[in-house]
Amino acid sequence: MDITEKSWLECMHCSNVVPLYETRKFRCHCGGLYDVCHSFPKQNKVNVLLMTEFFDSRQIYNYGDSILFSSGVWRFHELIMPSLHEKEIISLGEGIIPFWPAGNNIRKWIGTDLDLWILPEGLTPTGSFKDFGGTVAISVAKKMGVKTVACASTGDTSAMAAAYAAKAGIKCVVVLPKGRITDVQLAQPLAHGAEVILIPGNFDKCMNVVLELAEAGRIFPINSINPTRIEGHQASVFLATQFFGWQMPDVFVVPVGNGSNSSSIGKGMRLLRDLGFVKNIGKLIGVQSEAANPLARSWELTQDEGVAHQGRWKETYRALDEIGETTATAALIGNPVSWEKVMREINESRGAVLTASEKELNEAVMVAGKDGHFVCPQTGMALAGLRQAVERGFVKKGQRVVVISTATGLKFPNVPAQYGKHLIKETKTCETEEIAQIIGV
Amino acid sequence: MDITEKSWLECMHCSNVVPLYETRKFRCHCGGLYDVCHSFPKQNKVNVLLMTEFFDSRQIYNYGDSILFSSGVWRFHELIMPSLHEKEIISLGEGIIPFWPAGNNIRKWIGTDLDLWILPEGLTPTGSFKDFGGTVAISVAKKMGVKTVACASTGDTSAMAAAYAAKAGIKCVVVLPKGRITDVQLAQPLAHGAEVILIPGNFDKCMNVVLELAEAGRIFPINSINPTRIEGHQASVFLATQFFGWQMPDVFVVPVGNGSNSSSIGKGMRLLRDLGFVKNIGKLIGVQSEAANPLARSWELTQDEGVAHQGRWKETYRALDEIGETTATAALIGNPVSWEKVMREINESRGAVLTASEKELNEAVMVAGKDGHFVCPQTGMALAGLRQAVERGFVKKGQRVVVISTATGLKFPNVPAQYGKHLIKETKTCETEEIAQIIGV
Repeated sequence: MDITEKSWLECMHCSNVVPLYETRKFRCHCGGLYDVCHSFPKQNKVNVLLMTEFFDSRQIYNYGDSILFSSGVWRFHELIMPSLHEKEIISLGEGIIPFWPAGNNIRKWIGTDLDLWILPEGLTPTGSFKDFGGTVAISVAKKMGVKTVACASTGDTSAMAAAYAAKAGIKCVVVLPKGRITDVQLAQPLAHGAEVILIPGNFDKCMNVVLELAEAGRIFPINSINPTRIEGHQASVFLATQFFGWQMPDVFVVPVGNGSNSSSIGKGMRLLRDLGFVKNIGKLIGVQSEAANPLARSWELTQDEGVAHQGRWKETYRALDEIGETTATAALIGNPVSWEKVMREINESRGAVLTASEKELNEAVMVAGKDGHFVCPQTGMALAGLRQAVERGFVKKGQRVVVISTATGLKFPNVPAQYGKHLIKETKTCETEEIAQIIGV
Repeated sequence: MDITEKSWLECMHCSNVVPLYETRKFRCHCGGLYDVCHSFPKQNKVNVLLMTEFFDSRQIYNYGDSILFSSGVWRFHELIMPSLHEKEIISLGEGIIPFWPAGNNIRKWIGTDLDLWILPEGLTPTGSFKDFGGTVAISVAKKMGVKTVACASTGDTSAMAAAYAAKAGIKCVVVLPKGRITDVQLAQPLAHGAEVILIPGNFDKCMNVVLELAEAGRIFPINSINPTRIEGHQASVFLATQFFGWQMPDVFVVPVGNGSNSSSIGKGMRLLRDLGFVKNIGKLIGVQSEAANPLARSWELTQDEGVAHQGRWKETYRALDEIGETTATAALIGNPVSWEKVMREINESRGAVLTASEKELNEAVMVAGKDGHFVCPQTGMALAGLRQAVERGFVKKGQRVVVISTATGLKFPNVPAQYGKHLIKETKTCETEEIAQIIGV
């Protein structure tokens, strides 16, 4: 392969550069976020045809094939993290998933005729899209000789960190607020043997402990401040583009919480364009809930005909001190870590950040369910945002649209329990004939 | 393709034959269970090389490819249900899953050096192996013009029935005992818009209603009495055998509840042998829990050096009136519907039905978790059974073994909640330095 092996971190504000495999402090001294960078050859030196043939040959995994064949992320090794040797990769087979053509109910609900697809990233080993990132972060940690990884998370991140750390044989610590978490939230970290520390403080205190320990170089953080953790999410773009015969979809619709996934998808689109795989990037549409929509609020303030005024957008951005209530708890973040990265990618793709109403995001979950797809409420957000984007003319009839489904609905049984109640009928009898009449057969 | 299009049902007792696509009564008048049969050509007329090339070409799914490319079950259309036209198939992309090499912890726990693989069928659309069967049963129902499918199930079957019926646009009814089910158990049927009927009786009453309605031809049953529901489980064998370059694994280890999955896996092995894809079948090892092990009990009574005395085995079989307690609730069945089919396949493969202790099956879940694999307690049963099979010499060093993992651990958060408690530490402080000392960093 003709892609070289150098990787480093570069501050998105002051362009300060630090080595990738020696750094555990993931904020630059200027306060900026780092980007992971690789010394890819210039476009005209990348043999795109040869590389797509390589990537295509890895779509089949049979006995004896390397790890580049058994993962939908590492299939694109040379684009994701070329400086890792394939023997250094820690994988659980993430990204070997179907690709769903949207069903009739959701198509009708969206309201126009699209070439609409859902990428069900919840059908991964830990049940959420985080696996796409976790495999990269834990592989980097392993290469660096990290002894302990840690995170503060009640949900998908701790599940992912625990699973991949277990696979790597690295100790994993999850810091959580005592008395505010359920047994179910603890199930995945405990299943993978992570050490769970319950402290007498709120979630922010937990995050503070993790960040301070990371700053001191005592743990390797798996929260999304760590830029190696979000590189793998680019694979969503690579998988979709490969699926369509190396044609970039017109639109990606992505739920936005901390902004790591949406910004990585933007980055992945740019990479394919910059290396010459495709001519143009797609439009990135991020979607937040009413309960926590800081990016969408400021986008709306500065947008004109669906495009943000780039100069003014950043000025109007305000983190939210108070967040509301939503079933889409995994995206309930008033101050997204990666907000500037999201802005960069939305601007680059002339995209949008929209707000899904609570009513519509839950409705979307139930409509997708009628197509046989049990998705999480964050996916519901994305679907509701797409519906709005169609109504407002940002997405047009006939366009090819990929919705990123970020987790399995199994992690959110409360949505159908609440919104599907009307489907329950109680009988006073066990007699078959009477029950048959109730059923109507 | 050189496989023809006739399918029928044949009673395994009296060989009575009925048409496949016209039948809704799934017990023969003699009381026997039906097998699904197809008029495959004789071995020397099947062009095995051509067919494996066809099946291999379908391992890659790209835009524009047919449904035979987007499903790990229908990739083997000509073996699974050749009399269905591909346009009649209802699929959710089941069987597009990774194949896990067993990790170091589970390998060490099993205790000998095996070529050990885990097929994670829980990473399917509804989170359990039932999808492999559901796609076939609902496709058949759709072709037959069925208006209503029904089942009595608190778990995987109702989830599967609801999801596939939704995709097909068929009404699904789930009959359940009022007051004995949790919101989480209801989540999947409700998510997919199934009608849930709560009746004032126990689970047997619910099943009775479904069977009586089925007998009367008023609903199409999706419980495992319906032989079209279990045909798809053969795909586990086809997927594994294809993965190993069309070499049959030495051993399949399968949890046994109603016996539908294990017997279909035996049937799939025989089919590959009878059509000439492989020379010999593998050994089938079924595993039950202490709480409900009617097949294992009678196997132990009649086995000699690991092989049942075929004549005597059936005589010693007794359904259990009372069942015990186990975390492996999905296999907690004292009177398995398909017990005779399981016996047939175990006999044919000179296999075994073993009993996993409650302690070991839960231990196995936690050990697999340490490898990054969160599996259900039924998979724990299978792993514990394999360990025992190794100890007793039924499985030997160096053999290639495939363990069928039947559901995601996400459906059973109670296991790590109970068996991982020791991993939780509570602090009295939020001070980073003190917490660092507790963590040991």
